[in-house]
Amino acid sequence: MLPTAVVRYLESHRKKHLASLMEFIRFPSVASALERADDCRLTARWLVKYLRSKGMKARAIDVPGGRPNVLAELVVDKKKPTLLIYGHYDVQPAEPLNLWRTDPFEPVIRNGSIYARGASDDKGQVFAHLMAVEAWQNTEEGLPVNIKVFIEGEEEIGSPRVEPFVRKYADELSADAAVVSDSEFLTVDLPALTYAYRGMVCLELTIEGASHDCHSGLNGGAVANPVNALARLIAKMHDDRGRVTLPGFYDDVMPLSDTERRAWKKLPFNEKAYAHSLGLKALCGGEKGLPVMERRWARPTLDCTGIKGGHIAEGPKTIIPAKASVKLSSRIVANQSPNKVIAGYRRFIAKNLPPHFRFKIEEQTAGWPLLVPLDTPSLVAAKDALVEAFGKKVAFVRNGASVPVTAYFQRILGVHPVLMGLGLPDDGLHGPNEKFGLNQLYRGSIAAAAFINNFAKQQIKK
Amino acid sequence: MLPTAVVRYLESHRKKHLASLMEFIRFPSVASALERADDCRLTARWLVKYLRSKGMKARAIDVPGGRPNVLAELVVDKKKPTLLIYGHYDVQPAEPLNLWRTDPFEPVIRNGSIYARGASDDKGQVFAHLMAVEAWQNTEEGLPVNIKVFIEGEEEIGSPRVEPFVRKYADELSADAAVVSDSEFLTVDLPALTYAYRGMVCLELTIEGASHDCHSGLNGGAVANPVNALARLIAKMHDDRGRVTLPGFYDDVMPLSDTERRAWKKLPFNEKAYAHSLGLKALCGGEKGLPVMERRWARPTLDCTGIKGGHIAEGPKTIIPAKASVKLSSRIVANQSPNKVIAGYRRFIAKNLPPHFRFKIEEQTAGWPLLVPLDTPSLVAAKDALVEAFGKKVAFVRNGASVPVTAYFQRILGVHPVLMGLGLPDDGLHGPNEKFGLNQLYRGSIAAAAFINNFAKQQIKK
Repeated sequence: MLPTAVVRYLESHRKKHLASLMEFIRFPSVASALERADDCRLTARWLVKYLRSKGMKARAIDVPGGRPNVLAELVVDKKKPTLLIYGHYDVQPAEPLNLWRTDPFEPVIRNGSIYARGASDDKGQVFAHLMAVEAWQNTEEGLPVNIKVFIEGEEEIGSPRVEPFVRKYADELSADAAVVSDSEFLTVDLPALTYAYRGMVCLELTIEGASHDCHSGLNGGAVANPVNALARLIAKMHDDRGRVTLPGFYDDVMPLSDTERRAWKKLPFNEKAYAHSLGLKALCGGEKGLPVMERRWARPTLDCTGIKGGHIAEGPKTIIPAKASVKLSSRIVANQSPNKVIAGYRRFIAKNLPPHFRFKIEEQTAGWPLLVPLDTPSLVAAKDALVEAFGKKVAFVRNGASVPVTAYFQRILGVHPVLMGLGLPDDGLHGPNEKFGLNQLYRGSIAAAAFINNFAKQQIKK
Repeated sequence: MLPTAVVRYLESHRKKHLASLMEFIRFPSVASALERADDCRLTARWLVKYLRSKGMKARAIDVPGGRPNVLAELVVDKKKPTLLIYGHYDVQPAEPLNLWRTDPFEPVIRNGSIYARGASDDKGQVFAHLMAVEAWQNTEEGLPVNIKVFIEGEEEIGSPRVEPFVRKYADELSADAAVVSDSEFLTVDLPALTYAYRGMVCLELTIEGASHDCHSGLNGGAVANPVNALARLIAKMHDDRGRVTLPGFYDDVMPLSDTERRAWKKLPFNEKAYAHSLGLKALCGGEKGLPVMERRWARPTLDCTGIKGGHIAEGPKTIIPAKASVKLSSRIVANQSPNKVIAGYRRFIAKNLPPHFRFKIEEQTAGWPLLVPLDTPSLVAAKDALVEAFGKKVAFVRNGASVPVTAYFQRILGVHPVLMGLGLPDDGLHGPNEKFGLNQLYRGSIAAAAFINNFAKQQIKK
């Protein structure tokens, strides 16, 4: 059981913690926007100052061509086990702004939640852990573990530079366990531990025809149209059953185990309600014939995330566009390799695009999938912590999203990350009016503190 | 043969005519620019004054929401046949201005050409006809026909209000023949008569999935993607042979006659040079197996002129877009109806788009195709006139572009327009440093006068 002093500290510091979190959230730390690069630097600087004020050794590390990462350390006793806390300070773009009820970077409390870009993803969630560490520090017995903190600045653009970073700072990051809160409950009453993420591949394909937009009357019928050709190429990437047709795409996919399939059937997943929350009557994405849960959690995908070509302003313009481009993204699952999937895209495009078009492919993201064994001790410690903090049963779930760094923890640091989501399913991540519940913040910090406790005790037993 | 007096009059008035044309050209009558609306009004007023000075009844007619049109009439004898002369005083925008050697609205003579925006398109060309009318008026025998003049103010923005105008003023416009000089020779040595334009249909399709952009990880595999669906829909609009698959699309298409096909083979068309001018190695648009000329001039098309969906700014964004839209445009040929083609689009979209997507279609343009029978007497009169004025053989050509007003002359006024282009292929229409050759102007006015002569004699014979 968590010492009462820790709980009391958290209770009595709510106002102060909330004020600090609001400060953190106010930074428009959008990693994908060049004009926000300074804001990202300022956020990292603020974090360093904040962590230092909590007694940590902290620094922001510049990442060439990218946004800085923040590393911090708090060594209480070299013989004690070490816990790595990971989160990210960068956020998704807030556009389109007209869909927000209030300024995305001026957090407001409404109906018991903080509304702002990044409130849940991931500023609020990582902050709950910092609150827990601070609470432990202020008890008589002190922190039972050493703490390392890694707050990334490029998670929302797919952590393009995190792999070399983790390799370079492997010693500083090495730990006995790692915890990441960048996910969510399954329902408001069902905390969940995520044991798998999908990996991700993002690339942009541009195809070019004539050297300039040309008159669709004088040239229509003679000049091949890159937008039409791009549409044909994209259409070919799926068959009529919704299966991806890139060469070798499914070769390495780990089939879903019967145990998991059975467990998932018991999860309180209401397909209709889920569809309704997205304004949909039916969930028609992915492979036909497979259950929705399997399609979201255990199957790879191919989605166009953006497309552009020709005249995109108001009204007609009678041209044959000179070029067209599409952003393509695949989620991949254990044991797929992002590199093999990208190679599949390249082969498919080269083979299927008519030869009279020039094309270029820009690789933007390549992240590995994660799968943590269900009997990992720190995962069990986290489950007990959630039960203690929220007083509810805990579900073990996969997640269709991607947190590339978690796979690098596994692949480079050799530590299975514990994915203890503190958000709620209706937090509106990446969309307008993102929110994070105050209850999730406060109880989340208690769960984070209990996790430290349980993890420390496990290590003593060993 | 044209009476010598007419030719002499034109020869002796070159300076005066050129000065008047320069005045006409100096007006920056750009119909698409709101801040040029006054300039358009002043141009129309100048034209009215000019036409009145030549003894015509003339007036500018305000077009609600648009630019005024100029109508004029000169009745010499009600029993004589009537010729309608059409042109337009509005011009394309001159931007980008830095590419012009001299001020686009301060005409200068260089190397035997007038350089200015609108010199060829269409101020110089329509002026040649006014010169011819004046020359005939000043001979002893006088004008052998009655003259009507219609100078439009919105041709360069697609004549959006010309159909109701032609309907409303059908009586004032009615004539036994109509001549339009708003096109060009095929080469500097080959005058051309255009006997067909394609019609055009433009619409914008928007398809919608989820009520908002949603996370491609959390939802990928469950939520159907509107961009992918739009691509599949567009891809289906052509078969593998490049034929359009909209229902009934080719039903009414008038097949190319063997006579025309044979004649076109003799036209000086260099496929390689044409492809090269567009930065292309091959001309792969349209239906496989048909010659380029047929595909450009005599076959209907379906082109995406613009497409947009999801994240179109820099870098990746991992969403499943809520919606996607495409601008679709078809050039249509005799005897297709734009309304039937639009109905085909609607049926195709409703049938082929998966039912879980909502969609809306915005109709933007619907213009009829034009085809003038090659044995139309006024067309023959024009050919003889061009031979007489330029001393060269004349080609009969179609044109893949659309000039909607020409079809309204045919459909509403019941008169086949004669499309007697006086420009040259290198006049640089719509681009920087537009020019109109002085030789084209002077010989063009002789051709216009000869056309009046030939047309009048035809009518007498009847």
